[in-house]
Amino acid sequence: MTIADLPTPVLVLDADAFEHNLAAMAAMLPGTRLRPHVKAHKCTGIAAAQARHGHRTFTCATPREMLGMAAVGLGQDLLLANETLDPARLAAMAAAVEAGGDVRMTIAVDSQATIDAAAAAGLRDVLIDVNIGLPRCGCSPEDAGRLADAARTQGLTVRGVMGYEGHLMMLTDRDKKRSEVDAAVDLLLAAHADVGGDIVSSGGTGTFDLHDRVTEVQAGSYALMDTQYATLEFGALGQPFHLALAVVGTVISVSPQWAVLDVGLKALGMDHGNPSIDDAAVWFCSDEHLTYSPDEGGTLPSTGDRVRVWPAHIDPTMAQHERVHVVRGDEVIDMWPIDLRGW
Amino acid sequence: MTIADLPTPVLVLDADAFEHNLAAMAAMLPGTRLRPHVKAHKCTGIAAAQARHGHRTFTCATPREMLGMAAVGLGQDLLLANETLDPARLAAMAAAVEAGGDVRMTIAVDSQATIDAAAAAGLRDVLIDVNIGLPRCGCSPEDAGRLADAARTQGLTVRGVMGYEGHLMMLTDRDKKRSEVDAAVDLLLAAHADVGGDIVSSGGTGTFDLHDRVTEVQAGSYALMDTQYATLEFGALGQPFHLALAVVGTVISVSPQWAVLDVGLKALGMDHGNPSIDDAAVWFCSDEHLTYSPDEGGTLPSTGDRVRVWPAHIDPTMAQHERVHVVRGDEVIDMWPIDLRGW
Repeated sequence: MTIADLPTPVLVLDADAFEHNLAAMAAMLPGTRLRPHVKAHKCTGIAAAQARHGHRTFTCATPREMLGMAAVGLGQDLLLANETLDPARLAAMAAAVEAGGDVRMTIAVDSQATIDAAAAAGLRDVLIDVNIGLPRCGCSPEDAGRLADAARTQGLTVRGVMGYEGHLMMLTDRDKKRSEVDAAVDLLLAAHADVGGDIVSSGGTGTFDLHDRVTEVQAGSYALMDTQYATLEFGALGQPFHLALAVVGTVISVSPQWAVLDVGLKALGMDHGNPSIDDAAVWFCSDEHLTYSPDEGGTLPSTGDRVRVWPAHIDPTMAQHERVHVVRGDEVIDMWPIDLRGW
Repeated sequence: MTIADLPTPVLVLDADAFEHNLAAMAAMLPGTRLRPHVKAHKCTGIAAAQARHGHRTFTCATPREMLGMAAVGLGQDLLLANETLDPARLAAMAAAVEAGGDVRMTIAVDSQATIDAAAAAGLRDVLIDVNIGLPRCGCSPEDAGRLADAARTQGLTVRGVMGYEGHLMMLTDRDKKRSEVDAAVDLLLAAHADVGGDIVSSGGTGTFDLHDRVTEVQAGSYALMDTQYATLEFGALGQPFHLALAVVGTVISVSPQWAVLDVGLKALGMDHGNPSIDDAAVWFCSDEHLTYSPDEGGTLPSTGDRVRVWPAHIDPTMAQHERVHVVRGDEVIDMWPIDLRGW
């Protein structure tokens, strides 16, 4: 089967670029130094490939990701790097741990309410989520020790701290990025001094190479990449990761100045703007259409042609699709369900 | 059951606002004067409500929407207002028609290739899609007659023409909008003179009240509305539709200056920008978070509070969710699967 046989719009994962990305990251952050973030792909097939590269600990953003990873045997050490107060979902995670089968689930807490909810559900392991500069979840660094004590009072095991410097991911000035990441990690380490535990978890694909003082990095986008992250340079590393995920569309209409693909905004994550097409300008996306034109000197495609569209943000793009096809060149060699969608 | 019992993020449809919208539109464009666009909601429960208000003809954007509508008995007159070349999907639609059961499917064509594909699949009914100003699908008005002849040569029934003036939807100057819609309809009627057939189909929620020369209007957003369309005035009508769809989130973290909801960009359509919260400023959305603060004089919520988030664009928001709950006030009175997602 080739890409031409697939109904479109359809996600395709370039096997060689993907393997390159996994191998490059595993060489730099081997084993538990990386806790790959599942939210970037929501696909246990991709997580299994990350596990084959030596990573057996994973980060999740939703209870469904946690439960789905455990269900396929990838639950040895899962971190829900997010707060939840949902009693049913917390209980489901506790039940998955109680059921045995080498499943461990640790969840982030940043308040008395989230600690109480975790304890009430029967969960055992928590991490104190610390605000290190991004205005989102996380307690103030000064409050982390008090919350850790409160968690231990409830019988919870506090495994350490996490903090996400998401506001620094897209900085392009390397020196500025390094100094700001250092300042954020200072806050996290100060909290860790009060909290204790073995884990200091932070970082993402935009900062993964600037973290020599944490025990693990939570990068996820590196595996598939997108056009936003691909703009970054990583100092001496250059850009160590390749674009591995495209949405393939079919040309359904050709006009004298433009062509239209069946890859609309419902097949893409649009929060970082329009996707890209090689040697072409993307004019706009509608619900089920993308209008584009070839760069000067190029020629318009023909109706029925297949075209690869590079998403600006992979995480929400993956979440729009039911499956991803693994390809080598134009040959389809595998298909993985995107089985961790939803909440 | 109340909204407080629902796991979040969760879509809620306000029953009264929804009924108001359907009744208001059905009074202005009764019966077949409106061909409601299913892409706006992808939900047969909502389509069934539109049918109860007298509309038995529907517009779809994908083959899955067409097949799903037929499967629940809403397939008497379905229009795929979009081109497709997919032989399997075209054949599936032809098979649904052949199976009987009062199903009629008409598909848009704008080229010899799309005509050939429809005929080869055994479909019977087509509409000539005409470009009336939006650079997307559609033949030039001058070419419509030739394509209609080509379709008839293949044994297809040409039911008329369609053209979508999507580039005019968000114009705020009513006089300018009226004159530009008139000019677009002039193009469509010129094409229709060459094509023939009973149908002249056009329009959307942004222009629905400016179409007295077409046989039907394809509006869809009116049923649920979103913050983008809600900015429009409709001349003497004012704004005849109310916001009926929200994503309800739970406050999972509260800091001194902001609060965080579990309604991230994977629960929203983000192509029209950030969603809104009453009496508050939305700072930004992450994959699974929304950071916001109350307007001056307001107070921060408490952890665990439920908050309604108004999407900027409903079509892709609906496509992110598995179900929508119908509510009256805080009481949950029904649940409808969003059963037409995907392609």
